[in-house]
Amino acid sequence: MTYSIVELIRTKRDGGSLPPDAVRWIISEYTADRIPDYQLSALLMAIVFNGMTQDELDPWTDAMLHSGEVLELSDVAMPLVGKHSTGGVGDKISIPLVPIVASCGVAVPMISGRGLGHTGGTLDKLESIRGFTTAIHPSEFAAQLNDIGAVMAGQTETLVPADRRIYALRDATGTVPSIPLISSSIMSKKLAEDLDGLLLDVKVGSGAFMKTIEDATTLAKTMVAIGASHGTSVTAILTDMSQPLGRAVGNANEIAEAVEILRGRGPEDVRELTIRFAAEMLVLAGLSDMDAATARAVDAVESGAALEVFLRLTERQGGDPAVVEDTSLLPKATEEHVLVAPRSGVVSRCDAYQIGIASVRLGAGRAKKENHIDPAVGFLIEAKIGDEIERGDPLVRIAYNDEQKCSAALEALSQAWEIGEEPARVGPLILGGIQ
Amino acid sequence: MTYSIVELIRTKRDGGSLPPDAVRWIISEYTADRIPDYQLSALLMAIVFNGMTQDELDPWTDAMLHSGEVLELSDVAMPLVGKHSTGGVGDKISIPLVPIVASCGVAVPMISGRGLGHTGGTLDKLESIRGFTTAIHPSEFAAQLNDIGAVMAGQTETLVPADRRIYALRDATGTVPSIPLISSSIMSKKLAEDLDGLLLDVKVGSGAFMKTIEDATTLAKTMVAIGASHGTSVTAILTDMSQPLGRAVGNANEIAEAVEILRGRGPEDVRELTIRFAAEMLVLAGLSDMDAATARAVDAVESGAALEVFLRLTERQGGDPAVVEDTSLLPKATEEHVLVAPRSGVVSRCDAYQIGIASVRLGAGRAKKENHIDPAVGFLIEAKIGDEIERGDPLVRIAYNDEQKCSAALEALSQAWEIGEEPARVGPLILGGIQ
Repeated sequence: MTYSIVELIRTKRDGGSLPPDAVRWIISEYTADRIPDYQLSALLMAIVFNGMTQDELDPWTDAMLHSGEVLELSDVAMPLVGKHSTGGVGDKISIPLVPIVASCGVAVPMISGRGLGHTGGTLDKLESIRGFTTAIHPSEFAAQLNDIGAVMAGQTETLVPADRRIYALRDATGTVPSIPLISSSIMSKKLAEDLDGLLLDVKVGSGAFMKTIEDATTLAKTMVAIGASHGTSVTAILTDMSQPLGRAVGNANEIAEAVEILRGRGPEDVRELTIRFAAEMLVLAGLSDMDAATARAVDAVESGAALEVFLRLTERQGGDPAVVEDTSLLPKATEEHVLVAPRSGVVSRCDAYQIGIASVRLGAGRAKKENHIDPAVGFLIEAKIGDEIERGDPLVRIAYNDEQKCSAALEALSQAWEIGEEPARVGPLILGGIQ
Repeated sequence: MTYSIVELIRTKRDGGSLPPDAVRWIISEYTADRIPDYQLSALLMAIVFNGMTQDELDPWTDAMLHSGEVLELSDVAMPLVGKHSTGGVGDKISIPLVPIVASCGVAVPMISGRGLGHTGGTLDKLESIRGFTTAIHPSEFAAQLNDIGAVMAGQTETLVPADRRIYALRDATGTVPSIPLISSSIMSKKLAEDLDGLLLDVKVGSGAFMKTIEDATTLAKTMVAIGASHGTSVTAILTDMSQPLGRAVGNANEIAEAVEILRGRGPEDVRELTIRFAAEMLVLAGLSDMDAATARAVDAVESGAALEVFLRLTERQGGDPAVVEDTSLLPKATEEHVLVAPRSGVVSRCDAYQIGIASVRLGAGRAKKENHIDPAVGFLIEAKIGDEIERGDPLVRIAYNDEQKCSAALEALSQAWEIGEEPARVGPLILGGIQ
């Protein structure tokens, strides 16, 4: 059937719903260059204002998902469960999480992104391990999953090309912040991983894209519903991103912190989320109930099985396992600067967004896609919300290679901390769950 | 100064205002092909939703107006007053109006459009006079205005090119219905006519683009305010377009009706609006007060001075004045069909929109810009709102050349009339004025 794109734009503009077949037609015509960018961008802006119903969003996502190849993982003997985080600062959870889950007998075909804006990216962090490559061809996924139980790769050209094109257009036309468009972008890519189950970490707070619990809840519900209509079990957990996760913000230093978690050490918040997420993924795989799954995840760390999987994964993907064994071999910056507390009191704010912006200025992140990052630089946060500190105590240690970049980072960091007199209210790390 | 178009789109999307210099930058960059269509269309859609403030609209209109040449009419000895109608069905007012006003010593540099969709166009009507050309080069305007007091011409490539491009983009992206965008499109073209005063006929009702008095009032006020900020006196009159104006809907037959008006005859509603508008234009020119201006306009018809100007104008623009002298020489259709009343009663609806759609189907109008029209075909309306009729009385006489087109027109016409039992409320023709 053929539609008039102008009529469909008008319908969406006037608050109407598009028929499912019309939605599929739009995606396939756009992908085939038969709808020009200027018409799609007008439609996208109308969607920013008027949203999409679930009956529009399901075929929109499905059509994107089928715009290219889909991972063919039917040969993998284990259940397949994926994980996606909407992005934050210091969010290295995937790195210890994937080996833990894989060591429990669940395959994780993990396709991640790079850092952009104030948020970091798993690929950049992994590449700070000497030799590690994330350019894994989709045809190699099944074999590696059967051998090791996990792949940690980057996007390829062949998976969900419609999303790449539409995202680039959204980026250039001010049409990024739309919950249905964000949902379909994420879910089309994750569902192309041919999963049995999917865990979504929906971050909320200054360092997240969703600043309020209401928006995060809507996003989570929207993505869970898309999964349901596609026949994939999805669990969404809302987690706090008002302050960075853990102590390390950067790339090499986040790998070191992730390895600490795999050794049963490291910051409490990172450990808590990692174990919770691992347990949720084992439940999604149908392996056990939450209590037993939690025990299995803890045991995977304590027994060293998870670290062993990470070592094998690193080696399989060209990385040097010696760096994982001894994280002092990771790239190191030459200089350190310590930002200290200007007064005594209790930390009431340790702002993830400002720290994320500072990390871009330091060279640990990217303002634009084409920027290069320096894996060695980063922050070690010494004071988080609720900590009692004395004047002169360190707030953050800055590992840097370039004086000017350090100064630029300090400008943002100086706005990140607030020190009060009252005991600060420390909010929960896990804010809710949606299934 | 250089701006980021994506930032400007985001500002408008989020309900903010664009600085005047940014607005001028957008129009000049787009016209120079340095902003792509896909970014402008996203901005236009954001404007459809969030509107524009007067402080945005004034520079937007001014930048469009200066995107090309502006008429240079300082050599014209008389005051210059223009007129624009937002478009309707059977709206031939400009044709008798321009000669009346010109015969009273006010120059009218009239640039009109063609029919599109359910509305007719002055150019198409004039071209049903054998030889009449509306392709007058802007450089000839001043001389013709000094000689005859009037020019009736079509758009040229050199005047307001930004409007042509932006309108084409709006048409393809569902961003036409926006009061600020409509206002700036109309006003940029009229202000490029170098006028001392401008009369706007803002039509309201089923056959108009503005369906409600509220929307029409907003449009009128917006355009009057743009005129004020440009230093041009503008009067807007809101007039009824729930039923067609006069009896004739078509092209040649509307010229015949217009000539009737110039002879002091013709339908009362057409005469009433023509005289009122002529008087308003004389007042805008500063010639006299409303009462004296009305008397002068009536006298211009009764003395034959106005008809004389129309004859001279026709001759100057290559048309055959014999056709104006004897309108039976206008193109005539070969066939006639009469649609009759299915019952007796009082006409309560004679729907301008349905009759406009029927005229397109008959071949008197255009569904698309590239369609050709047949000047000879059209309707003569025999029953209007408030008329008492008997079953079998004619509602409309259809002059046609093509049986199939007549049938297609009849389908729309059959939905145009409603005949009730009660005396119908006949609303006023003039609904308000804004200065």
